[in-house]
Amino acid sequence: MTRADGRTADQLRPVTIERGWSEQAEGSALISFGRTRVLCTASFTNGVPRWLMGKGTGWVTAEYAMLPRSTNDRMDRESVKGRVGGRTHEISRLIGRSLRGIIDTKALGENTLVIDCDVLQADGGTRTAAITGAYVALHDAVEWGRERGFIGKKALALRDSVSAVSVGIIDGEPRLDLPYEEDVRAETDMNVVVTGSGAFIEVQGTAEHAPFDRTELNALLDLAVSGTAELARIQRTALGLP
Amino acid sequence: MTRADGRTADQLRPVTIERGWSEQAEGSALISFGRTRVLCTASFTNGVPRWLMGKGTGWVTAEYAMLPRSTNDRMDRESVKGRVGGRTHEISRLIGRSLRGIIDTKALGENTLVIDCDVLQADGGTRTAAITGAYVALHDAVEWGRERGFIGKKALALRDSVSAVSVGIIDGEPRLDLPYEEDVRAETDMNVVVTGSGAFIEVQGTAEHAPFDRTELNALLDLAVSGTAELARIQRTALGLP
Amino acid sequence: MTRADGRTADQLRPVTIERGWSEQAEGSALISFGRTRVLCTASFTNGVPRWLMGKGTGWVTAEYAMLPRSTNDRMDRESVKGRVGGRTHEISRLIGRSLRGIIDTKALGENTLVIDCDVLQADGGTRTAAITGAYVALHDAVEWGRERGFIGKKALALRDSVSAVSVGIIDGEPRLDLPYEEDVRAETDMNVVVTGSGAFIEVQGTAEHAPFDRTELNALLDLAVSGTAELARIQRTALGLP
Amino acid sequence: MTRADGRTADQLRPVTIERGWSEQAEGSALISFGRTRVLCTASFTNGVPRWLMGKGTGWVTAEYAMLPRSTNDRMDRESVKGRVGGRTHEISRLIGRSLRGIIDTKALGENTLVIDCDVLQADGGTRTAAITGAYVALHDAVEWGRERGFIGKKALALRDSVSAVSVGIIDGEPRLDLPYEEDVRAETDMNVVVTGSGAFIEVQGTAEHAPFDRTELNALLDLAVSGTAELARIQRTALGLP
Amino acid sequence: MTRADGRTADQLRPVTIERGWSEQAEGSALISFGRTRVLCTASFTNGVPRWLMGKGTGWVTAEYAMLPRSTNDRMDRESVKGRVGGRTHEISRLIGRSLRGIIDTKALGENTLVIDCDVLQADGGTRTAAITGAYVALHDAVEWGRERGFIGKKALALRDSVSAVSVGIIDGEPRLDLPYEEDVRAETDMNVVVTGSGAFIEVQGTAEHAPFDRTELNALLDLAVSGTAELARIQRTALGLP
Amino acid sequence: MTRADGRTADQLRPVTIERGWSEQAEGSALISFGRTRVLCTASFTNGVPRWLMGKGTGWVTAEYAMLPRSTNDRMDRESVKGRVGGRTHEISRLIGRSLRGIIDTKALGENTLVIDCDVLQADGGTRTAAITGAYVALHDAVEWGRERGFIGKKALALRDSVSAVSVGIIDGEPRLDLPYEEDVRAETDMNVVVTGSGAFIEVQGTAEHAPFDRTELNALLDLAVSGTAELARIQRTALGLP
Repeated sequence: MTRADGRTADQLRPVTIERGWSEQAEGSALISFGRTRVLCTASFTNGVPRWLMGKGTGWVTAEYAMLPRSTNDRMDRESVKGRVGGRTHEISRLIGRSLRGIIDTKALGENTLVIDCDVLQADGGTRTAAITGAYVALHDAVEWGRERGFIGKKALALRDSVSAVSVGIIDGEPRLDLPYEEDVRAETDMNVVVTGSGAFIEVQGTAEHAPFDRTELNALLDLAVSGTAELARIQRTALGLP
Repeated sequence: MTRADGRTADQLRPVTIERGWSEQAEGSALISFGRTRVLCTASFTNGVPRWLMGKGTGWVTAEYAMLPRSTNDRMDRESVKGRVGGRTHEISRLIGRSLRGIIDTKALGENTLVIDCDVLQADGGTRTAAITGAYVALHDAVEWGRERGFIGKKALALRDSVSAVSVGIIDGEPRLDLPYEEDVRAETDMNVVVTGSGAFIEVQGTAEHAPFDRTELNALLDLAVSGTAELARIQRTALGLP
Repeated sequence: MTRADGRTADQLRPVTIERGWSEQAEGSALISFGRTRVLCTASFTNGVPRWLMGKGTGWVTAEYAMLPRSTNDRMDRESVKGRVGGRTHEISRLIGRSLRGIIDTKALGENTLVIDCDVLQADGGTRTAAITGAYVALHDAVEWGRERGFIGKKALALRDSVSAVSVGIIDGEPRLDLPYEEDVRAETDMNVVVTGSGAFIEVQGTAEHAPFDRTELNALLDLAVSGTAELARIQRTALGLP
Repeated sequence: MTRADGRTADQLRPVTIERGWSEQAEGSALISFGRTRVLCTASFTNGVPRWLMGKGTGWVTAEYAMLPRSTNDRMDRESVKGRVGGRTHEISRLIGRSLRGIIDTKALGENTLVIDCDVLQADGGTRTAAITGAYVALHDAVEWGRERGFIGKKALALRDSVSAVSVGIIDGEPRLDLPYEEDVRAETDMNVVVTGSGAFIEVQGTAEHAPFDRTELNALLDLAVSGTAELARIQRTALGLP
Repeated sequence: MTRADGRTADQLRPVTIERGWSEQAEGSALISFGRTRVLCTASFTNGVPRWLMGKGTGWVTAEYAMLPRSTNDRMDRESVKGRVGGRTHEISRLIGRSLRGIIDTKALGENTLVIDCDVLQADGGTRTAAITGAYVALHDAVEWGRERGFIGKKALALRDSVSAVSVGIIDGEPRLDLPYEEDVRAETDMNVVVTGSGAFIEVQGTAEHAPFDRTELNALLDLAVSGTAELARIQRTALGLP
Repeated sequence: MTRADGRTADQLRPVTIERGWSEQAEGSALISFGRTRVLCTASFTNGVPRWLMGKGTGWVTAEYAMLPRSTNDRMDRESVKGRVGGRTHEISRLIGRSLRGIIDTKALGENTLVIDCDVLQADGGTRTAAITGAYVALHDAVEWGRERGFIGKKALALRDSVSAVSVGIIDGEPRLDLPYEEDVRAETDMNVVVTGSGAFIEVQGTAEHAPFDRTELNALLDLAVSGTAELARIQRTALGLP
């Protein structure tokens, strides 16, 4: 079976990372998974919210949003509607948990990192692109804080890297990194967040049209582990790491 | 290792289901997982929202909420804050997806089912208790619609049953059905939604304090499958089914 | 004239109070006036809001809400609508005033009591059931505070008990404790809040379909005073008081 | 006992009504109860909301609000806060019920009347001044509709007039029409809405500092009945009626 | 060409200022530009918002709003809609900037002035009437603060006066002070805010139906400068200044 | 006097326009004025809002927003705050008016164009860059509609082009196209919207620190007219027009 865009079932879309896209943020990356493009910025602030003060630990949080015309049909702005929708909330929380899964908040010290992931163009996989780009922005903001002495020179604030990919079963076949047209047809859809060393941070599988069994679950996890290993390599290259 | 409440690692808390608790709703259940108590009601309406009219399919949606003093510390009401929080949105969406995973909306016909799950008392596992109780309420509301001729006599609107349970790793040990005090200590926490016939509807695993590997994931899935099989039996008993 | 449920005009519906229904709250009661069921919880906090600090007086407030399917037709959630409605506001304020009418905030000391009244099932008289149940929850929360030394051993924080009942004129006949079907037909509808010693805290009479005269007003007040005397007895029994 | 403003206990403040103050509204009145000044406008629309169409009855509703600096200390605007407060809701509903108590919605036909009562200056009794002025605005808007043929020539849309006054017990003495400084000191405070023919539309008595007994209630009602009779005369004069 | 209300092209509508209309505010004015009537109040508070504390400068801000029936068709209240509209925001900000343009916040000292401009009746030019009336209210509130010693005796908090007027091109002719019926027909519409000494604070010209050229712009500015000079004279008379 | 970035007083920052940046929108442009970068998309919909149906005219509207970390300090999202701020509203309205100033809505026919201008990076002049880029996006969306037959082949929907620039007086010197650091220091600040043929659509001058006179106003207008002429040339180049 060949996919509409010519990829094999276990192949990622072309992934590019423009590190340092923003001249304002302490860390930033404009990441593309094919036509999906997400601008990730990391804002570093010395200090923590009031309820964390004096505990010696830092705080990492994330916010996700889509531009109104990032999609094929224009969506109303959540600011105009006056409320953040359930899907937006859910993805913002997922990104935050994924990043907190690899950060050592003790080593970070009393500093706050806010990661904004704004989808400029959407074609499936926006949340996984966001997590993958957010790590690059986070990495550079942590370095920014270290250079200015807000984080200890030897503190290992980032224990590992993190990336994410979507996988799904389309027409009975497990596939990696779904664009929009595959995503809507998937019987089962899964987002998997994996560390650079190959451990799971988050596994979210959903039966969209039919329940799935243990064999299918395993096939999807295999695909996701290999896809995130490739993403980890791309992140290291973007960051100039060995 | 013994648990604080004396259970073995693979044991559910005492589960009770008061079917038909509400005299107003078309289907209802007051379900308890230990001290966690959730009132589930199913509201049946003949007809569907405007955007679905004339398509011959039904609509199922769910809303989850917690009473302000269901928890140990009183929470502010979301109505007073003027916005529904991210966690509430996320769980409402999960319950809806879980129920839509076993319902045949074609067989349901142009009818709407709204499931409300209100947590009266919370001690961990509120979303899994909600899904498990919601199925009982849904079942009875579907019967109500069938008896009144809104659903065809032979239409198999419910393809299967559905229940859910939480599992997690505490002090390195995989455990079933976590109360609040275990939930906050879990290194990894997973909610698994399973059909009566044993297939997965949703798998949501989160590394709370440490990433998890494939072996741990498998151990947790095994526990969840056995726990939901037990819950499916309890549901059948409550419904007077063989 | 006989009523649809067989009661005489001056008879209450069956009233039950499950004291201590909640294992989380400092005081609680699940109260039923016939099919109307309200869960009342009292949350005790040592300390007062900022604007009251240092004045040596306590603070008592109440919030009322209905579950979406407590009624015959499902109502939208106020959290989802993003605003608390006028009726909800009005009843919350009434419950708060009723409780403040019997509490001595000086004797209470710098402590805060928040009473939540959530209607699980509605069949008329939800606000009067809420006030009557709220008193029981309040009583136990005050005792909880006293036992822990937050309130002085001899401080008489509760000067009296309080209960409430609805009365109305249906087909020209004054009746006590209206269920929903009588409530909608009432020409005049009145909610009366009375202390255990028989004094008025609140009298709210409304001409729904026809203005009322002084004679009718007096007949309704007589009914209400006798109904609340009976409720005060039921409260004392629930609390194990002589 | 003499009052701070020199009145006797059973005397109203100077009441003035500037009928037709607005050149935009179909009916309007700028009413003063002493320093309390409320601008009441009545907006007449031919037609009713969708849910009333085809039933042959009209609709009357009211909205109350205070200008931010109508009071001694500036209040935040409810538009800026993004929500209408409980007190505002409560008073808007009271005004609406009071007007619906004297209007025959069948005779009104399928027409809508919206009454706006905006407090320009507040010194106690704003809700009673609002009701009293609203009647004058309503009267003229009904006439406006009759002159244009929207209401039948002989239809008796207004069955009676309506006015309201506050009464309270201060230092043990029942007093009529409380200004702010008496209102805050009142042990018991009551707002009474009475028709031109002397029947009650609404009786709202609240024990602010001490419960009240039947004797006190009767004394307050006597005062209110005599005060509203005087207000009815002032309304007739303003309207040029005999 | 003559205008519908008989004025010449360079003539203001009748302007009246009732200084001190409010007995509650520190400064106030009820201003009329023809049928347009705006109640302006200035609230003086000793102290500044937290973010300005200790800087030795004051704060001046303004809020504009329209009563729902100030206009020919009733508008929904912004408090009921739960949000302040774009036009309201824009005008509030314009009034605030206009007043800050003539106040010396250093000389004002750590005091706050909030100016509320509520449109009681609207017939075009509400924002320019609001600015013109707001200055009178501001002037008196500053005097109030000076008399009580909150502002230094010799501090020149108000460097100048300020007033505003609308101008526009109707049927090719530049006209001063547009009522509603001219405003909607204007090809170009301009609001000009000018100090008592004739300098510009704000110039806002908008091509409503056709772009405008430099000659037209100059003609409009000439009209506006002469109109605001007249308004400055009226302000001085209202304030009893030479 | 030389400027911090080396420009002369009458020189624009480097301006770049990436036409067609979005693969989703019918028209789009990523425009840069120096470090200020705005993504403009134009969404074309066949049909108009209900209140315009059947009138034979189209509708053009615009929404402006800033990404939270487009600025030097991160701003809270308006979606999270639950309300659109005054500045955002004001700029959205300005962009909409500017575009409507050059579009012939009759020639557009019953079609709707929504222009979204999202600031990805901000360094002063975001509203003027937005208007200038919005025109390019609008142009291409109109062409898109014409190619698909939604707009008549010969209909001249765009009567002219439009661009905008900021001008201001810094240290007494009139300057063109202010970056952030000049903007905050400007005594007077002006945004001018000009058509390709040199007529004014909007002139908004504000005295930030000192009132301005007629001579200064004229100097600023001269600068703006020459700057927008240069922008019109850059727009034509981007669009491949002669």
